[in-house]
Amino acid sequence: MANVTAVLLLSCRDQKGLVAQVSDFLYRNNGNIVHADQHTDREEGVFLQRVEWELDGFAIERGRIAAEFQPIAERFGMEWTLRFSDYVPRVAIMVSRLQHCLYDLLARWRLGEYRADIPLVISNHEDARGVAEEFGIAYAHLPVDAATKMQQEARIDELLQRERIDLVVLARYMQILSDSFVAKRRNRIINIHHSFLPAFAGARPYHKAYERGVKIIGATAHYATAELDQGPIIEQDVARVSHRDSVDDLIRKGRDLEKVVLARAVELHLRNRVLVYGNKTVVFD
Amino acid sequence: MANVTAVLLLSCRDQKGLVAQVSDFLYRNNGNIVHADQHTDREEGVFLQRVEWELDGFAIERGRIAAEFQPIAERFGMEWTLRFSDYVPRVAIMVSRLQHCLYDLLARWRLGEYRADIPLVISNHEDARGVAEEFGIAYAHLPVDAATKMQQEARIDELLQRERIDLVVLARYMQILSDSFVAKRRNRIINIHHSFLPAFAGARPYHKAYERGVKIIGATAHYATAELDQGPIIEQDVARVSHRDSVDDLIRKGRDLEKVVLARAVELHLRNRVLVYGNKTVVFD
Amino acid sequence: MANVTAVLLLSCRDQKGLVAQVSDFLYRNNGNIVHADQHTDREEGVFLQRVEWELDGFAIERGRIAAEFQPIAERFGMEWTLRFSDYVPRVAIMVSRLQHCLYDLLARWRLGEYRADIPLVISNHEDARGVAEEFGIAYAHLPVDAATKMQQEARIDELLQRERIDLVVLARYMQILSDSFVAKRRNRIINIHHSFLPAFAGARPYHKAYERGVKIIGATAHYATAELDQGPIIEQDVARVSHRDSVDDLIRKGRDLEKVVLARAVELHLRNRVLVYGNKTVVFD
Amino acid sequence: MANVTAVLLLSCRDQKGLVAQVSDFLYRNNGNIVHADQHTDREEGVFLQRVEWELDGFAIERGRIAAEFQPIAERFGMEWTLRFSDYVPRVAIMVSRLQHCLYDLLARWRLGEYRADIPLVISNHEDARGVAEEFGIAYAHLPVDAATKMQQEARIDELLQRERIDLVVLARYMQILSDSFVAKRRNRIINIHHSFLPAFAGARPYHKAYERGVKIIGATAHYATAELDQGPIIEQDVARVSHRDSVDDLIRKGRDLEKVVLARAVELHLRNRVLVYGNKTVVFD
Repeated sequence: MANVTAVLLLSCRDQKGLVAQVSDFLYRNNGNIVHADQHTDREEGVFLQRVEWELDGFAIERGRIAAEFQPIAERFGMEWTLRFSDYVPRVAIMVSRLQHCLYDLLARWRLGEYRADIPLVISNHEDARGVAEEFGIAYAHLPVDAATKMQQEARIDELLQRERIDLVVLARYMQILSDSFVAKRRNRIINIHHSFLPAFAGARPYHKAYERGVKIIGATAHYATAELDQGPIIEQDVARVSHRDSVDDLIRKGRDLEKVVLARAVELHLRNRVLVYGNKTVVFD
Repeated sequence: MANVTAVLLLSCRDQKGLVAQVSDFLYRNNGNIVHADQHTDREEGVFLQRVEWELDGFAIERGRIAAEFQPIAERFGMEWTLRFSDYVPRVAIMVSRLQHCLYDLLARWRLGEYRADIPLVISNHEDARGVAEEFGIAYAHLPVDAATKMQQEARIDELLQRERIDLVVLARYMQILSDSFVAKRRNRIINIHHSFLPAFAGARPYHKAYERGVKIIGATAHYATAELDQGPIIEQDVARVSHRDSVDDLIRKGRDLEKVVLARAVELHLRNRVLVYGNKTVVFD
Repeated sequence: MANVTAVLLLSCRDQKGLVAQVSDFLYRNNGNIVHADQHTDREEGVFLQRVEWELDGFAIERGRIAAEFQPIAERFGMEWTLRFSDYVPRVAIMVSRLQHCLYDLLARWRLGEYRADIPLVISNHEDARGVAEEFGIAYAHLPVDAATKMQQEARIDELLQRERIDLVVLARYMQILSDSFVAKRRNRIINIHHSFLPAFAGARPYHKAYERGVKIIGATAHYATAELDQGPIIEQDVARVSHRDSVDDLIRKGRDLEKVVLARAVELHLRNRVLVYGNKTVVFD
Repeated sequence: MANVTAVLLLSCRDQKGLVAQVSDFLYRNNGNIVHADQHTDREEGVFLQRVEWELDGFAIERGRIAAEFQPIAERFGMEWTLRFSDYVPRVAIMVSRLQHCLYDLLARWRLGEYRADIPLVISNHEDARGVAEEFGIAYAHLPVDAATKMQQEARIDELLQRERIDLVVLARYMQILSDSFVAKRRNRIINIHHSFLPAFAGARPYHKAYERGVKIIGATAHYATAELDQGPIIEQDVARVSHRDSVDDLIRKGRDLEKVVLARAVELHLRNRVLVYGNKTVVFD
């Protein structure tokens, strides 16, 4: 059990004594803290904390930690989750035609950058089948049109459940998912949008950026919500462009942004570094 | 006359032989080119060029260059301007309460970074008078309310004309100028907007950025047009922020962006490095 | 006393219970924490913390806080300092010929960005006298040559002591200070170096960058130590350049980097956000 | 032949009439220019130009262009190369244990980002064999120790010749190549170094960066020369780090920089966008 850690992610109304109580709980039980960070949003009066400690040597056995922490959580009215670092989350990737993000995620996974299982790739096209199969991953081709949309989404939903998927990554999946599908997976669907949100939400952001004549383009990874491109932002990055860049150049430069921004967001999520409150994230990096 | 240069800025429909004709014109007349750059927008079919050469040794005397170039310009249907590097442009700065951009521009000017005269600062408040006067610059306090707006703008217009102002810099001037005022000075009013346009156009961009939970903020310098915050973008820059940053932190970090983005845009304009076509700029830097 | 805060900056060998003890100390005494952050360097086994809380409502009166905290500090073997936010630090700026950093610092100060007094500018040239006097600051002209170096440094030392200077800012001061002068002011002299350290330490970094053909230039603010350009780095930033940029362009672009990097480092220091350990800084921003 | 272009890359001593002569040559022969850019290094007195035009409609047939241009080249003493866009360059990738750059290059290639053939991967380890073979590429495992170094390099040389390799990409290949091997392939070996050169040349740059406490890390792609990490820089990029980042974090963040910086350099080279003069590059992007 050496090196296995527990991660506590919590949020509540800001109150005195929060840090003291939580750190005292760990101290009394001989917890060796390997990461602790907290944030107070003064305007909203919200306190958020991430604390990670080693199970090895901790006085409370793994299966009892939640129960022992429960009284503190109740006293302060916390929303909280407890996770263990040896749990391997299950990830499904959804993709349409463009495969650069998919390829990048799978290469990182293969090279050991992600602690996760990726048992499933879902697409509304056949294009990416070859890539998925090269990595030994099941490929579900579920083409979508106006008539079949709801029915196909039901099949996607079924597949995700059957595979006990913890996280869905929309790696340039160009279909809009229904509100109910998204609502069911709050903060468990990460989308990459190929613009610097809130600029150029919606379709064809590089064309819009070109027309507007911006000097910098961007990409944004966010949790999907019912409102398109409006969910909590996890990560963004930008690149400088100039009049020399055609739309194709923006697309080319943008691809590199999309890859790295999505990859970082997925990693932060998998390492339990992201807490959502309201429509924002706290990223404990 | 040593070191004085001529700058030709031209644009026209893209055609064969453009570069050849212009460079031949300079070559035949013994022009020593110190900078030449061109750009072709293939989608729009537009050609744009900047060429700068030394007057010293040039076969055509200064006063005759325009006339001698005219036939080439006509053959290709060029829009063009000819400028000489020893002309000292006259700049007016307009400002409301926040003085960081004003101070930065004036310090640069005093330290010799800008080749320009700055005879006039205009404000709707008294706050910046001290700074302007420290630099020996006339200060026109023209407070604005709904009733006096048009009348005050007429006075501004009059002042700018009397002072033969070539460039107006809106250095955090928080009043909206009328369409006719702006139209009269097409590509001669530079505004700094405290967001990464087109995100957060309009009022209170830092508050909006905070509410949206973006991970990067920006600033944009653009030529003012009738539509608020929609004019051709000259320069943009961004800075990384996090959940740790309050609105006040965004404002503080944004100030540094505003200063440097506006300063660069003004410099590019004063060095005749910017060409506008459609709603975009070509920046020959 | 409303809004006055106390800041505790501490470092010690990493041990269990540190966070619990410190937060318990504040909690027991009804401290309203407005900022808390900590860092553990696992390789070095060092723990560092910054905690800031309101004096208003705190159970221990201001003058007794240090004494009451002392037992905790001793138990854990802490190095620590306690500061109050209403203390106004006294800053001296040293400058040679180039005045862009000086001007920028003074403008920020005038506009209220820094909580500090700046009673003194020291220079080995006369150039900056005008600027200093405009801001109502005493100007000490202490020219330096090989023969007078030690003697002039003694006078500088005397001036700094007489003015009870807390922080010396080397805003492009191009003379090397003696080891003993620097040693006496450990972590209290901030220098701006016009390169991305450790690249291009020493003289003429922009020329060296040009010759090396780098695609990015930088600036570095660091605490001065006996070894030139080797002190703990507080802040760095970079800007993209290209083959189009001459040495003069690098100098011009670099100026903007120098200004903003130095300004940020000074601000972080003045807000008690920087802790030094070994030859590194922890910046609690 | 529609869409096939010719690219002329030339450099010579700066002289009057250069642009005029070259553009006149293209104009007289009805060349439709799709890209033209030039640079003059005033300090060195060097002129460099890249011009690209469509073969379709050009008055000189492909096989005669070089001969027809020769007189102009001789008059001005140009070094020059002529390339055609339908030539498919042959690339070999050399790699040691770390495969993120290799994977990224191959995924880009598979997805059509590079116009090139990649028939060969060479490594001193077996680790990357699986990846190469997945992409259908021959894998030469040539382990190196002090005794076999020269002999193995001879085999590498032989393989590169047999496969008629135009460009060698060192994608984290951790062996030093001999001077003669490198000299034979001047400006045809691209290396990625995992630091912001000239900072942290040589071994273990992330460890050195961590020890120095820098606030920004970088990666550099450059042409290999006899002197280690001293060759002409093609591309660099950086990422912000903080005291929170361990050496492992620097390595993780650095990986993303290495991938994208190397990928861009390879692309610029393959699109004939890079000209080397002295120890610098001109990148016509």
